[in-house]
Amino acid sequence: MIKNMKPLILITNDDGITSKGIAFLVNVMHKIGEVVVVAPDSPQSGMGHAITIHDPLKYHESDLFEKLNIKAYQCSGTPADCVKLAKNHILDRLPDLVVSGINHGSNSSVSILYSGTMSAALEATIEGLPAVGFSVCDYSHDAEFTHTESLITQVASKVIDQGLPKGVALNVNFPKVSEEPIKGIKYCRQAKGKWQEEFDERVDPSGRKYLWLTGKYVLSDEGEDTDEWAINNNYASVVPAKIDLTDHEYLKELLS
Amino acid sequence: MIKNMKPLILITNDDGITSKGIAFLVNVMHKIGEVVVVAPDSPQSGMGHAITIHDPLKYHESDLFEKLNIKAYQCSGTPADCVKLAKNHILDRLPDLVVSGINHGSNSSVSILYSGTMSAALEATIEGLPAVGFSVCDYSHDAEFTHTESLITQVASKVIDQGLPKGVALNVNFPKVSEEPIKGIKYCRQAKGKWQEEFDERVDPSGRKYLWLTGKYVLSDEGEDTDEWAINNNYASVVPAKIDLTDHEYLKELLS
Repeated sequence: MIKNMKPLILITNDDGITSKGIAFLVNVMHKIGEVVVVAPDSPQSGMGHAITIHDPLKYHESDLFEKLNIKAYQCSGTPADCVKLAKNHILDRLPDLVVSGINHGSNSSVSILYSGTMSAALEATIEGLPAVGFSVCDYSHDAEFTHTESLITQVASKVIDQGLPKGVALNVNFPKVSEEPIKGIKYCRQAKGKWQEEFDERVDPSGRKYLWLTGKYVLSDEGEDTDEWAINNNYASVVPAKIDLTDHEYLKELLS
Repeated sequence: MIKNMKPLILITNDDGITSKGIAFLVNVMHKIGEVVVVAPDSPQSGMGHAITIHDPLKYHESDLFEKLNIKAYQCSGTPADCVKLAKNHILDRLPDLVVSGINHGSNSSVSILYSGTMSAALEATIEGLPAVGFSVCDYSHDAEFTHTESLITQVASKVIDQGLPKGVALNVNFPKVSEEPIKGIKYCRQAKGKWQEEFDERVDPSGRKYLWLTGKYVLSDEGEDTDEWAINNNYASVVPAKIDLTDHEYLKELLS
């Protein structure tokens, strides 16, 4: 990076370009670099690492962040599509950092696998770019984000300065705002748990059954070194997440 | 499992219930257990670990495998939805094995992250069920699968007998059919690589631009212990894949 050039920061998310979380992230990142936004034109929660291959992609410029003099593009695709599109089609130089979020809702524990927010970050990692996904444990449309600003700045600045190992992105989750400020950052592992599904069965006006997928998260991990423990104890959790899914330990066993 | 009860095998895929690959897998699994099929009603390739939360799910019984006396259901959702629906809503006992595929096309290397086939297997793993995803490196609609039968039987039988460690699914990829039979199974790690994107830009009849996402896989890994090496040398690759994405090695470094 040329010293007198501001770091280029690509921002995307999975709640869509008009969500409150991305607007907050744009304002925070604007203070530390040159920002370009490429984000889905509609909410994409739960999209995991989906990409668009059977339909064409569309995108156009948006004036949403014009007041800050920030270029923004809204895209018909998924969060992972947005990263591919930005890097390979829109940007004229490589970003120094890719940030995704702030997601309205937790992406800790096993939720990372369903998360559009983190799939955008992991897609950037595949592309060799340092990337961080940010989420706040508050699913509401009007979630509060101000309590996360200083820690977001701290994490993002550190990654811009020092980079990340190849093949690793950071999954950062913040507790919901409370009276107490967040105690700081905890580096931790992904907690074991799962979403316990319930299918809410209904009947449509023509008599056909349909289901709504609902569920609650069930933690099955008592570890104090996990992201769930950190969040529940008012820390921001930072999990280094790999794109190599190989279980190297079990592989050794299989080969022995 | 009660000794005189056949193992229950749940089959799903991401190419849709009418694809040739799932029909082949149903026929193979039928020889070793009681089979139930719950699969998407339309192709879901590239859906990653997407789940359906903003739309209702629909499903109904299908007579596609009636001749084999096999219960089958087609579902409006993603591969991961199918597994959730099967386990929590359709099946009356836990399956002894969940198999996904056979996918028309490779899911080796980094493609595992985009793969609906493997997301179904990993969803089963989250649910605590032993699971295997099968893919053949042939994207055609009419791909050949017969050369994989004995190895599929071998892998599936071993998993039914011995189970898998918690949190691990198997990602099995077969080379495209050739004159030589497949040499056997190689346990291996996920190769490093990425899809090099090209965006094919076009203009619709109203003058608006749209893009098709295309790309070619670029391998950046010379290792002979990788899935890519195995496939390119006419072996079936078997990668044990984890649902814990934590980079434990880097985490140790961060904590020291």
